Amino acid sequence: MIRVAIIGASGYTGVDAIEIFLRHKKAKLTYLTALAEECGKADEVFSQLKGRCPLDIEPLDMDKLTSLADVVFCCLPHKVSMGFVPKLLDAGLKVIDFSADYRIKDLGVYEKFYQPHTDAENLAHAVYGLCELNRENIKDAKLIANPGCFPTSVLLGTAPLLKNGLIENSFIVNSVTGASGAGKNPSKNFHFPNMNENFFAYGIGSHRHMPEMEQIAGELADDNVEILFQPHVGAFDRGILSSIYCQGKTDISDKQLVELFNEFYKDEQFVQILETAPMLKDVAGSNYCHIFPAVAKGKIVVFSAIDNLVKGASGQAVQNMNIMFGIDETEGLL
Amino acid sequence: MIRVAIIGASGYTGVDAIEIFLRHKKAKLTYLTALAEECGKADEVFSQLKGRCPLDIEPLDMDKLTSLADVVFCCLPHKVSMGFVPKLLDAGLKVIDFSADYRIKDLGVYEKFYQPHTDAENLAHAVYGLCELNRENIKDAKLIANPGCFPTSVLLGTAPLLKNGLIENSFIVNSVTGASGAGKNPSKNFHFPNMNENFFAYGIGSHRHMPEMEQIAGELADDNVEILFQPHVGAFDRGILSSIYCQGKTDISDKQLVELFNEFYKDEQFVQILETAPMLKDVAGSNYCHIFPAVAKGKIVVFSAIDNLVKGASGQAVQNMNIMFGIDETEGLL
Amino acid sequence: MIRVAIIGASGYTGVDAIEIFLRHKKAKLTYLTALAEECGKADEVFSQLKGRCPLDIEPLDMDKLTSLADVVFCCLPHKVSMGFVPKLLDAGLKVIDFSADYRIKDLGVYEKFYQPHTDAENLAHAVYGLCELNRENIKDAKLIANPGCFPTSVLLGTAPLLKNGLIENSFIVNSVTGASGAGKNPSKNFHFPNMNENFFAYGIGSHRHMPEMEQIAGELADDNVEILFQPHVGAFDRGILSSIYCQGKTDISDKQLVELFNEFYKDEQFVQILETAPMLKDVAGSNYCHIFPAVAKGKIVVFSAIDNLVKGASGQAVQNMNIMFGIDETEGLL
Amino acid sequence: MIRVAIIGASGYTGVDAIEIFLRHKKAKLTYLTALAEECGKADEVFSQLKGRCPLDIEPLDMDKLTSLADVVFCCLPHKVSMGFVPKLLDAGLKVIDFSADYRIKDLGVYEKFYQPHTDAENLAHAVYGLCELNRENIKDAKLIANPGCFPTSVLLGTAPLLKNGLIENSFIVNSVTGASGAGKNPSKNFHFPNMNENFFAYGIGSHRHMPEMEQIAGELADDNVEILFQPHVGAFDRGILSSIYCQGKTDISDKQLVELFNEFYKDEQFVQILETAPMLKDVAGSNYCHIFPAVAKGKIVVFSAIDNLVKGASGQAVQNMNIMFGIDETEGLL
Repeated sequence: MIRVAIIGASGYTGVDAIEIFLRHKKAKLTYLTALAEECGKADEVFSQLKGRCPLDIEPLDMDKLTSLADVVFCCLPHKVSMGFVPKLLDAGLKVIDFSADYRIKDLGVYEKFYQPHTDAENLAHAVYGLCELNRENIKDAKLIANPGCFPTSVLLGTAPLLKNGLIENSFIVNSVTGASGAGKNPSKNFHFPNMNENFFAYGIGSHRHMPEMEQIAGELADDNVEILFQPHVGAFDRGILSSIYCQGKTDISDKQLVELFNEFYKDEQFVQILETAPMLKDVAGSNYCHIFPAVAKGKIVVFSAIDNLVKGASGQAVQNMNIMFGIDETEGLL
Repeated sequence: MIRVAIIGASGYTGVDAIEIFLRHKKAKLTYLTALAEECGKADEVFSQLKGRCPLDIEPLDMDKLTSLADVVFCCLPHKVSMGFVPKLLDAGLKVIDFSADYRIKDLGVYEKFYQPHTDAENLAHAVYGLCELNRENIKDAKLIANPGCFPTSVLLGTAPLLKNGLIENSFIVNSVTGASGAGKNPSKNFHFPNMNENFFAYGIGSHRHMPEMEQIAGELADDNVEILFQPHVGAFDRGILSSIYCQGKTDISDKQLVELFNEFYKDEQFVQILETAPMLKDVAGSNYCHIFPAVAKGKIVVFSAIDNLVKGASGQAVQNMNIMFGIDETEGLL
Repeated sequence: MIRVAIIGASGYTGVDAIEIFLRHKKAKLTYLTALAEECGKADEVFSQLKGRCPLDIEPLDMDKLTSLADVVFCCLPHKVSMGFVPKLLDAGLKVIDFSADYRIKDLGVYEKFYQPHTDAENLAHAVYGLCELNRENIKDAKLIANPGCFPTSVLLGTAPLLKNGLIENSFIVNSVTGASGAGKNPSKNFHFPNMNENFFAYGIGSHRHMPEMEQIAGELADDNVEILFQPHVGAFDRGILSSIYCQGKTDISDKQLVELFNEFYKDEQFVQILETAPMLKDVAGSNYCHIFPAVAKGKIVVFSAIDNLVKGASGQAVQNMNIMFGIDETEGLL
Repeated sequence: MIRVAIIGASGYTGVDAIEIFLRHKKAKLTYLTALAEECGKADEVFSQLKGRCPLDIEPLDMDKLTSLADVVFCCLPHKVSMGFVPKLLDAGLKVIDFSADYRIKDLGVYEKFYQPHTDAENLAHAVYGLCELNRENIKDAKLIANPGCFPTSVLLGTAPLLKNGLIENSFIVNSVTGASGAGKNPSKNFHFPNMNENFFAYGIGSHRHMPEMEQIAGELADDNVEILFQPHVGAFDRGILSSIYCQGKTDISDKQLVELFNEFYKDEQFVQILETAPMLKDVAGSNYCHIFPAVAKGKIVVFSAIDNLVKGASGQAVQNMNIMFGIDETEGLL
């Protein structure tokens, strides 16, 4: 049994991870931590867990953590995470980090969007955990930078095009996410009477997932890639649909596109190529990514749908863990 | 032109009143006030008013108020309102108060559910503004206690039965309200990812609208009335549906019930009797109350639907104002 | 491995059962059938199954069924089911029937609410599959009448009271169900622009789940029980919340109620007693029932929440199957 | 009083028009028609009109229509409309047509997306009723082609750029509409359990509003314009948000963009320029268009929000009527 701890277990990604581990046959939760004011019995912090999870969520105790866990899901926010990760690694734990702190290799870029980086050493060795595109490196990783939700949808949706040099290296991504993407803290925009029946754009021109996408897309294309990424939020709980507008370099038909994507992902359980536009609801609550590539007005348009909290966070983290520990990659995720 | 001021204009009932006055041909808004931290241009405080309302929302200045208004909509919370109303009345203004402070005549009951009452004098003269049931008194009122949203739905739904002595004086009310009933301040339960797709009961055994209902129902029945009132909240913006379970005193048929209700409300524009269960959505955004009385398993069940913010608050307040000023009762409300 | 067939697999209960079996370690789906016009690859009929279920949904072939399955989930509609069940039993298959056809023992009552019954013989031996209340009989059953969704919520919510003779044998149930309860066929009321932001009552005085509740409640109370059952539908996908209003026979406190319920269900994984009103969303997608009993205005009010398609249908069916085959009752359901 | 008839009054645009006329002080509804199977009392066909509209919806009788109306709102579907419009015009009635039949001047384009056109004569004289951009021509029009909902949002959002030659003549429009855009007939995708919590793209590469946009955008730019228009549908009732991605021809700042748009629309009541992303909910139920232009990654991105049924259909039709009859353009629409 793999012994799993979750640090920062009191948020939405935490509870999604907990629920996955309730069904995981090869791993078990041993330790849950959060800020003192968010601690308590797990099934009181999350009333949906009533009778299902006997653990407490406790303030972090490094000794306890070290003795109880083989791997740590670090669900801390950006900027906070890099204060903890070095200690976890020093203690010999494997770490899957949910924040952006270990995703962006270029310190200058990171620091422009976030803050000064205090752990360049581990950053250098962190492995970007987009399972389908980076599986070999994940196997031996000590520290996984679990990808952002938007980047997961966009990178899976464009990898076959970028790898094959089929599109210009500048494209537009119009994404919509469900409201769970905003996290669990109440705020004006996400107050139900404001958010319900609403839809709006945010992060115009500067969303922090943009450099993450550009970095990995650039690696896939082996060239600089520039992405105009525009997120929106819709009045639903879960899911991200990215509509990606690319300029093809050569003529390609709808049929060829679908074949290309099917071939590229032919061994992947969690990436499914459709021949029609994905229904976001079909991937809600699951670790699947549904992709439909099409030709429209001379451009290539790709629709890519995931659950932002599962394939976009906790599910992909478990998938990474499964790869790191050499067990069936789909365990707990079907 | 009736000159209208709104005190406490920065909440949901405030903006609903503002929107009604944008269409009112015999009254106009002259002054809007709120707590200092909620002031600003009306169309910035409420972005849906952009370009529609040139007023500012300002901190209250009594001199300005007195010189600008004939009638004040007092949209302050319970307990706060009675600190202001005496001054407004002393200044010669007519007042329509949205709080519970002037609804409950029995000080002991009020104080049990709220706090010590500091304005017993005006309380004694306040008129309960349930227009259809109390129109004559409203005409000459200086101070209207605008009814609560739940009581409006329940009292309109049972008045024909209570007035005609057709039901036992103890009944059960199962109500559901939309999330706007919780007001504009973000909170955990009303955070979109918690409230969306949710439904729950609250205020079990002790909701503060219970004594208000019992008082007026008792006046209608000319007897003590006891109501087990159980509110719930659903994942929609607007509306209240009350399902009211009564024990009839005599046999009555479905047809007779509908006839009784139709006769009782035959001159009322805003109360419509249906022959099928009301759709809550049909009254959303309107000042109408849709009622369907039926016989089920030997009991009388009444379904009564209103918009909690319109007929249950701002719409009824305007209707009261129209009555007080002798103009067409439906002005601004169709 | 238990081999499972689903007849009538093309509806909502069918796909929920399929999803459960994707995670079940001791049973596997071997055969799926539906009306010819609803057949096809399972992952095309249900696009959320894309890449997850390799089976076809085929027209029923009795020989194939008999050779492929040990147990049949019969997800056919009321009235249709009893045309198939006798053949299934004759072929030696165990049957878990989702319809009402084998739930109501009194033929006269069944025929009043449905139609002439054509299989009185098997009806006599059918076991009512409310797992927590009837486990011993389920173990040896050949034919399970899987309970209705509303009855499941109401019976679990009142069993401790009825069994202990604590309430009068006449009570009121006000329930709300999500829109999935209406099934998959488009209709006017459930057209999104009509249903969204809506809420309404239906089946006034005569819902078909009423006699089913009364029969089992009567067995629990060992007396006639009369239930005024009033369902409503809300604008959410999943879940039933029943608010049950009972007259207690003796004084009981909130604390005693909670203790009584906790004691009654102390060995039950899937029934959790709360000390606050259940959030419907907490049970959405799960096989759990959350119950909160309370005293209000001298009455006992019980709130009971389940997922209508899981504990109210497919989940409970799997729970029944697990009991029948002597495996861990929670397998596939955690 | 302007006397108004609505042909095809039984759909969503019909009832929205009816509700507007309930508040219109200078026009009144005199005649409502629909297909025979959709006729009945208006307040039974639309239960939200209960007690509010005394008219019947009747099968069309041309004599009656001619004697009762000055202007006809023709709410018939594409392809059907052009069978009626010539008769209406011949009878001397003014016509505001909601279909696409009179919007596209190029017969070849129309026929590619729809069918052979049977009324080229009137098409030649029809005036495109985008009020803010074509007011002078609307004043004297006999036949208005009321714009499509998507084109309204896109053309208002790009007109200041196109007219001033500030963007390349090829751009991308990513739009989302509420579910009311699909009309009132139940269908699989819009069945509540399918649509709720869902989001998806449709009409990929070929939506019929594309040529309409391109034609008018071309007139504004005085050049050919090519638009990749990609609509999506979200789980809400009302509203369209178009996110428009353009390549600027020259450098321009956020501030200059806002100034340009403010200047362009400075006399327009119903177009409001924001300095932040529009909230779709702010325009739901209103005739307003909220626009926010911004610079992002070297491109110009414009967000344009309207209510699809009001400014995108019935509200704009009333606005057109007000212009045609020389009355206050905002009457009934504030």
